[in-house]
This record gives sequence, structure tokens and C-alpha cells, in this order.
Amino acid sequence: MTTANESLVLDAAAQDLLFREARTANTFTDEPVTDEQLQAVYDLVKYAPTAFNQQALRIVLVRSTEARERLVAQMSDGNKAKTGSAPLVAILAADNEFHEELPSQFPAFPQAKDLFFSERPVRESSAGFNAALQVGYFIIGVRAAGLAAGPMTGFNAEGINKEFFADGDHSVLAVVNIGKPGADAWYPRSPRLAYDQVVTTV
Amino acid sequence: MTTANESLVLDAAAQDLLFREARTANTFTDEPVTDEQLQAVYDLVKYAPTAFNQQALRIVLVRSTEARERLVAQMSDGNKAKTGSAPLVAILAADNEFHEELPSQFPAFPQAKDLFFSERPVRESSAGFNAALQVGYFIIGVRAAGLAAGPMTGFNAEGINKEFFADGDHSVLAVVNIGKPGADAWYPRSPRLAYDQVVTTV
Repeated sequence: MTTANESLVLDAAAQDLLFREARTANTFTDEPVTDEQLQAVYDLVKYAPTAFNQQALRIVLVRSTEARERLVAQMSDGNKAKTGSAPLVAILAADNEFHEELPSQFPAFPQAKDLFFSERPVRESSAGFNAALQVGYFIIGVRAAGLAAGPMTGFNAEGINKEFFADGDHSVLAVVNIGKPGADAWYPRSPRLAYDQVVTTV
Repeated sequence: MTTANESLVLDAAAQDLLFREARTANTFTDEPVTDEQLQAVYDLVKYAPTAFNQQALRIVLVRSTEARERLVAQMSDGNKAKTGSAPLVAILAADNEFHEELPSQFPAFPQAKDLFFSERPVRESSAGFNAALQVGYFIIGVRAAGLAAGPMTGFNAEGINKEFFADGDHSVLAVVNIGKPGADAWYPRSPRLAYDQVVTTV
């Protein structure tokens, strides 16, 4: 679809699967998404980098009818139907207490937990950014499993945090519908900014 | 490296290139990174999704000696040497005025610009999250070009914003060294959280 492929090492099929042909799905088939598929996604994208290897992303798979109803109630009107009908819905959140895992996860510098992350606002800012990177990796990982992702940010964040993270230590970042695309799954592809609109050189 | 590959559609070589074998590089060879390579990266990752197709990420390629010196001065001590010596360094920032592009980029709903994004704090929050997704996509894209990325968040953000975004409308998110990995490029791989530490089901 572009003339730029020759500068990439990634093969064309993978380019299409992950980026060029992949689309945000708005309808899904009934085919279930298994825990094994989610494990495969996680076991791939867990390797992508975060600052201090902090891995602040946490994932809640919404599988019960009761939990699905509680989630749908917090979604924006335009997102309720697809969130209610997708084979699997994942809530992606930042763990603002990620620093508890740093001594085991960043053994090269065990002092990081106390030196850099003793204050909650600093942790929230760092977790928000790094878990957002991981949301990006996760969307690519869902596609790597041959599934379509439908990421959404239209929801009552405070409501989701209360309903699903009673400890008060997590901040929802995105809700992602996951499954095989159904009938009329896509809107027309929107344009993209040109290279020169995004990239400058100094 | 895992038993989960069979649940993925993405071929094993691509899994290794993008995730399993890819590492954050701390040293680089002298081999230049060309504008053509960066264009290929952008022309791949531009397709990945953002809310309202807002595409808030902006990229500054630091190519001149003068600009490199101004950037290095804003980096944390531990990041100065590698930022000074990488073949190419990219500053990744959120454009907090991304809404100006929405009427052309999200033609399905041209009212979005005024209905949702008329207030700057709302734009800053949305741009911060969505451009962070795009930082994640960009890191994967650099790897897709057969290059190593060295993303960093250790810098004086206010200083970089002043030095490189005089309009006051951009917020730096990450600085990424880019090139072919050099001698002793990697630290030992840090552990990763287990699936059950990250994923819960409700």
C-alpha cells in the first residue's frame, strides 16, 4: 500500500496484520476469545519496554454477565452496544502502586522504588504514561493473535475505577473489545497526517 | 521462547523482531539512520488507532550538532552520553492543539473539535494519553525497520519544551535514541510480571 516497505525488515504480511490492514472493529462474530489467546498476547507484549521496567499496566477480563452489565453502565452511549456484545472485553488500567514490584522487576537498581517513586503523584504520572505505552503494545498484540481490537476511551472513568478497582489504586485508561470482526465491522478508514505534518528536523 | 506461539497468527520471526528478541539499546554503531527509514516507520505506524483519529504525536528529529547539544543539556546525567552519540535521536511530543486537525482527520464527526475539545486541559489529557499510545507504536515501528530503539524519560521536560517547542503547545513525552546496536548494547533482560500478576478475570 506504500512504496516505503523496502526500508522495513518486517515482512509485508506482518505489516498488514498489525498495521496496514488492521482496523478498529465495531462489530464481532460470536466466536469466543479464549484465555489461551490472551495468555499468548500477554506473553508477547510483556517484553516491550517501560521505564524502569515498571510494567504498570493491569488487565481485567470481563467474562461474567454481571460484570459486563456493570461495565456497560459506565460506557458512553455510543459504546454501550458493542461493549455489551463483544466476545471479550478487557479493562486496561494503570496500577499506581506499581513501585511495590520494582525491587523484583528492576534488580539492576533496587533503590529506584524509594529514590524515584516514593510519592504517589509521581507514581500516577509515571504509571499513566508507561501503562499507556503498554495499551499501545496490547492493541498490537491482539492483532498479532489474529483478532480485532476495538479500543475505547468513551466511558465514566471514575465509575469504572469504583466498580472494578475498589482498592483506589488503579486508573482506567482504555476499554478494549476483542474478537473476530463481524458484519460491517469497519467505518471507512479515516485519513492520516502526512509525514511532513508530524515530523520536523532540527 | 514460550509455548504460546501457536495461539498467535504473527509469524515467529516477526514476534522476535518486534518483541521477543528486541531490546532497549544503550550503545549504537556509527551507521546512519536515514530519513527514508524514518518515513517508512511513520508510514507503517501511522495506521495504528487513536481516539477520534486525533494523531496527537509529533516527532522532532535531532540531526544538527547544535540541536543535539541543546538536547543533551536537558537529559539526565545517565542519559547524556548515549543521547550524544546515537546515530539519530527523536523527540516525541504531544501536540496539545491537535484538535485543529480534527475536521480533516475525523470527517465522520466534524463537530468533535468543538464538542469535545474546546478546553485546553481536556486536550492536554487526551493528547497525553493518545500520543503515548503512539510512542508505543513508534517504538515497535523502529524495530520493524530493523533498528534498535532506546526510549528514555529521564530528562528535564520543561527544558525540552522550551528549547524545542517555542509555541508552548507541545509536551515532550519521550526521547528515543535510534540506530543499529553497538558493542555491549544491552543490559541483562529484566524479568517480566507473570500473567496472573497482571491479568484478572471478573
